[in-house]
Amino acid sequence: MTASPFDHPFLSGLLGDDEIAPYFSAEADIRAMLSFEAALARAEAAHGLIPAEAARRIAEICAGFSADLHRLRAATARDGVVVPELIKQLREVGEEAAKSLHLGATSQDVIDTSLMIRLKAVVFLFAGRLSAIVAGLDALDRRFGRNRLMGHTRMQAAIPISVSDRLTAWRAPLEIYRDRLTEQSFPVQFGGAAGTLDKVGPQGPAIRASLAQELGLTDTRQWQSGRLPIADIAGLFTSISGSLGKIGQDIALLAQAGDEIEIAGGGTSSAMAHKQNPVAAETLVSLARFNATALSGIHQSLVHEQERSGAAWTLEWLLLPQMAMATAASLRLAGELTGNIKRLGTA
Amino acid sequence: MTASPFDHPFLSGLLGDDEIAPYFSAEADIRAMLSFEAALARAEAAHGLIPAEAARRIAEICAGFSADLHRLRAATARDGVVVPELIKQLREVGEEAAKSLHLGATSQDVIDTSLMIRLKAVVFLFAGRLSAIVAGLDALDRRFGRNRLMGHTRMQAAIPISVSDRLTAWRAPLEIYRDRLTEQSFPVQFGGAAGTLDKVGPQGPAIRASLAQELGLTDTRQWQSGRLPIADIAGLFTSISGSLGKIGQDIALLAQAGDEIEIAGGGTSSAMAHKQNPVAAETLVSLARFNATALSGIHQSLVHEQERSGAAWTLEWLLLPQMAMATAASLRLAGELTGNIKRLGTA
Amino acid sequence: MTASPFDHPFLSGLLGDDEIAPYFSAEADIRAMLSFEAALARAEAAHGLIPAEAARRIAEICAGFSADLHRLRAATARDGVVVPELIKQLREVGEEAAKSLHLGATSQDVIDTSLMIRLKAVVFLFAGRLSAIVAGLDALDRRFGRNRLMGHTRMQAAIPISVSDRLTAWRAPLEIYRDRLTEQSFPVQFGGAAGTLDKVGPQGPAIRASLAQELGLTDTRQWQSGRLPIADIAGLFTSISGSLGKIGQDIALLAQAGDEIEIAGGGTSSAMAHKQNPVAAETLVSLARFNATALSGIHQSLVHEQERSGAAWTLEWLLLPQMAMATAASLRLAGELTGNIKRLGTA
Amino acid sequence: MTASPFDHPFLSGLLGDDEIAPYFSAEADIRAMLSFEAALARAEAAHGLIPAEAARRIAEICAGFSADLHRLRAATARDGVVVPELIKQLREVGEEAAKSLHLGATSQDVIDTSLMIRLKAVVFLFAGRLSAIVAGLDALDRRFGRNRLMGHTRMQAAIPISVSDRLTAWRAPLEIYRDRLTEQSFPVQFGGAAGTLDKVGPQGPAIRASLAQELGLTDTRQWQSGRLPIADIAGLFTSISGSLGKIGQDIALLAQAGDEIEIAGGGTSSAMAHKQNPVAAETLVSLARFNATALSGIHQSLVHEQERSGAAWTLEWLLLPQMAMATAASLRLAGELTGNIKRLGTA
Repeated sequence: MTASPFDHPFLSGLLGDDEIAPYFSAEADIRAMLSFEAALARAEAAHGLIPAEAARRIAEICAGFSADLHRLRAATARDGVVVPELIKQLREVGEEAAKSLHLGATSQDVIDTSLMIRLKAVVFLFAGRLSAIVAGLDALDRRFGRNRLMGHTRMQAAIPISVSDRLTAWRAPLEIYRDRLTEQSFPVQFGGAAGTLDKVGPQGPAIRASLAQELGLTDTRQWQSGRLPIADIAGLFTSISGSLGKIGQDIALLAQAGDEIEIAGGGTSSAMAHKQNPVAAETLVSLARFNATALSGIHQSLVHEQERSGAAWTLEWLLLPQMAMATAASLRLAGELTGNIKRLGTA
Repeated sequence: MTASPFDHPFLSGLLGDDEIAPYFSAEADIRAMLSFEAALARAEAAHGLIPAEAARRIAEICAGFSADLHRLRAATARDGVVVPELIKQLREVGEEAAKSLHLGATSQDVIDTSLMIRLKAVVFLFAGRLSAIVAGLDALDRRFGRNRLMGHTRMQAAIPISVSDRLTAWRAPLEIYRDRLTEQSFPVQFGGAAGTLDKVGPQGPAIRASLAQELGLTDTRQWQSGRLPIADIAGLFTSISGSLGKIGQDIALLAQAGDEIEIAGGGTSSAMAHKQNPVAAETLVSLARFNATALSGIHQSLVHEQERSGAAWTLEWLLLPQMAMATAASLRLAGELTGNIKRLGTA
Repeated sequence: MTASPFDHPFLSGLLGDDEIAPYFSAEADIRAMLSFEAALARAEAAHGLIPAEAARRIAEICAGFSADLHRLRAATARDGVVVPELIKQLREVGEEAAKSLHLGATSQDVIDTSLMIRLKAVVFLFAGRLSAIVAGLDALDRRFGRNRLMGHTRMQAAIPISVSDRLTAWRAPLEIYRDRLTEQSFPVQFGGAAGTLDKVGPQGPAIRASLAQELGLTDTRQWQSGRLPIADIAGLFTSISGSLGKIGQDIALLAQAGDEIEIAGGGTSSAMAHKQNPVAAETLVSLARFNATALSGIHQSLVHEQERSGAAWTLEWLLLPQMAMATAASLRLAGELTGNIKRLGTA
Repeated sequence: MTASPFDHPFLSGLLGDDEIAPYFSAEADIRAMLSFEAALARAEAAHGLIPAEAARRIAEICAGFSADLHRLRAATARDGVVVPELIKQLREVGEEAAKSLHLGATSQDVIDTSLMIRLKAVVFLFAGRLSAIVAGLDALDRRFGRNRLMGHTRMQAAIPISVSDRLTAWRAPLEIYRDRLTEQSFPVQFGGAAGTLDKVGPQGPAIRASLAQELGLTDTRQWQSGRLPIADIAGLFTSISGSLGKIGQDIALLAQAGDEIEIAGGGTSSAMAHKQNPVAAETLVSLARFNATALSGIHQSLVHEQERSGAAWTLEWLLLPQMAMATAASLRLAGELTGNIKRLGTA
């Protein structure tokens, strides 16, 4: 049941990513949602909104909880979100703590915060991968930087450049992305039914700050209908895969001309035994175009009706996790591909 | 490992489709690829290109074959396509028939044809669903058609219309889509290494015709780099989900105003027990916008380099199956939603 | 004041089209809107809804009318559409016919029908251009078809093909488009305030049929909120520019390799006097990607609220005329480019 | 000749912007390109690359130059860029300075820098507009902030909120955008034929720094094939129009419900005299979706082949100026619309 290549039994070999995919599993999502509920209880207890004992018991329940996925699925079909049923299941196992659980929160608080917890971890890994790619390009520059390469403009041979010139053009945006990933903030989401924290009273902002701290996220006013954090991350992912797609395109063009690059590890053809296909290079282009396509939908969802829009929000779910996966695959393939370059340019 | 809501343990309750999802499973893809190989062997035997006994043996192997998914995945990572490894595994079990297997075909022939076999089945089901929705709208028209509804233009009350007027606007495009789905042709793909059927000689077109007939597909010249069949189907899917999204949007607006519609089966809120959310209506809008977003990428892949482009082709894989799933979910939800309408308009 | 290259004083040399641009001028739009009003009056007179003399007078006024563009612009800013002010100006010059003018029609009827009148003419010209390109490819096939060309798959040399093979892949979709353009129907739009023809009574459909006939358009029920005709034409335009973009991409790649194509008329470089840039080939790719991008927005506008949506409709205006212009430029450039091919392949 | 509503004789009343449009005129572009050539000459003279007298003469010529637009258009058709012909015309009037003109520069340097000069001015105006809108929302907050508004989630009445809550949600992203616009950097472009400043020798970076200073732009290494600056600005524009589109959508929904908002200045209907259409609100949604659509194409153009790609670059021209115009119109309309709010919420 795998319409998405990112999750597909065999296509994921090419397009998936074993390290990043787990962050977008149902298990990781539930685990992060449970950590939201536990942290919220702790924050509310710290500010006297619920008994400390209830918070302790909620944390315990969340730590040991195993959701009934079958019921979650059926309830999501009905409710459009998983949270009401998840809370219901949690309440079943901890009756005395039940009324302290999820106090003042709404489904979107749980789901958006879970996403941010996981994106933060993913972005940390992306920054590391970018550093590795930059280091790989540096190494290529040291080995081949003084080699000559024919510069091409408008798809025509122009004037000779050095390999170092080309590598500098590849590397420059990656260094910017690495910095941006490092500086990216991941806001907690906590607004309650209509974004006004109506159930938690004047201590709302203080509780939200504690919640953010518990979860290692940035404390900001709720952004239930202001989806700029999503658009920003999606834009950064798309820029990354776009610049890596440019590297892929360049390598595919170099491989076609044939005498200025040597790459190990190309693909087999079922029809032509003699061919070595620059599979990773081409796939970088595909992933860049996928993200460029999807980014449009993320920006469509900025037109978010009123306090919270189911329509615009659900559209994000259909796009953002896969954009993260496309970026992951793109970083993985770019690392492999640049590592497989055996020669660049001519001496 | 479920970045896509269509395949997700609990989000698929809302966004997936139990009837259509299996057509996009790895199992169904492999089964359809095996049926291509068996049918190709029969067609080539019928035209004397390979021994009848080899064709019989290939069919037998394909019928009983169970692929090693682990090896398929690893090979797809390397080759960019699953076919070379699949053929290798097939050849391992049928050595004497090995040299007759896959004769004159290339990976794209197998993969594109597998897609068409499955899309044909999917489209047949879609046509049935559309008919059911149209019948549901007809039933609503008989019950409530003479009721009065406030017509709205530019988001403002305009003049009264009848419920029948609104239902007619909803139904009209659906009838067109049903006809188009029924008339849609599904071309076989058979071109060989560079689209010239170079290995099968002058009988190429005749073999292709037999192959198409075996598989219940339309016989056409290879379209390895001419991706109009893909763009056409993607456009049709997007039009369908777009028109259903319009129905969803209208129902969400009716539900907001509140007195002109009664719907059963809305969703629960985790924060507000009194609310009935028009989840299916909103989700129809999300799915419409998802397909509208993805369609752009399908058309980007019309810019398909030379005889066959890995980059443009892989981009299709990232989009088309999910567009089919979005359309499936859209049809399912539209059927449920219109079936849940208990009253429309005022008497 | 020329943010769009299609209308730009110097960029239009590359990206505009002198033959097609006039159809998207304000003048042509007004002229077509006036022809709608005149034809509507004639149709309504024929069915006894207004006096024959009023229809005659309206036709006369429309024929000689010169709109005050300054006032039209100011009113469009206020009303979101030009029609109320245009009707007001018309009524000023023909007081006795004033009350018979625009009877039962709404702004969208006038504007959509004007668009269809002009698209019909444009599509006729497109079909002619496609025929010329197909004829040009036929001529190339006769001259060079037996030449040898290196077939490329996945950006790598694969096996030799003939020039005829490549030309056939280029030509095949164009022949389909030519047929589709010829068969394309252009529906009249006539629905009145909320699509129910409430002001013209039971004769509404008969008047609409007469109106369609007067204008050379197809008679169909109003499609004020059912924008499939727009999505269909936009999809066809995008498919055309996509397939021409594929030709452009192929030629740019051939020009880069250098020995399998000779083209006259490439572009000058300001930095490198020796270069001949394959400008038209690259521009075909740009135009293909432009339309592929814009098509997404057209499909977003299928989610059209209620009886008529200002938001979704205005989005069409921002996209469709330019998609027509991109297609026009694409057809013009493809014709020039294929005409400039002096040699293809090697003997 | 006005396929784009932004430049259209009457549609520009709604969708254009009189203050911003001139920055995207051919005249402004030429003027900025001439200022590049004059500044380059000064920078090169300052570093001893050309005689001071030549730089003085070039500045003089550029100041008084009037281009032959007709020849520019014809040459752009041939060359794909306007610069070679513009330089040619400049050289005709200043023969002795001719060989010092444009020294070491390429077309892309001139065109990209011209764009940045103009975008810098435009962004400054945008920041001012955003400030005015924020101030307008502040004023509304002071007047109506304590009024009650029904909060809506998933298109359903949820719980009451205050007008201030809604206004805070509208204002929050705008404040972020204002800061980003202020901090946005506008890089000079100077790379020469293949990005290596091959003609100006080791002083290249110093000349580029002087050039940047002359023009008030940021000094950075050439970004001829690294289009992140374009993607960043396009992303910011799209985020702005997206958040304003959300305000428009909210106001359209409020206007539909009717009792929680009073707006002056709605539009006239040609069919219904009683209607007041929330034209600006709807148009904000259209413009948001237009930019969201176009952003996808900007990101497609990150896949930029080799040293400079005509195809990817030309795609930017087709999109970015209109995205700036859409943002301008969006800011203008949002300012008008929020200024026209006479009442919000109920006391």
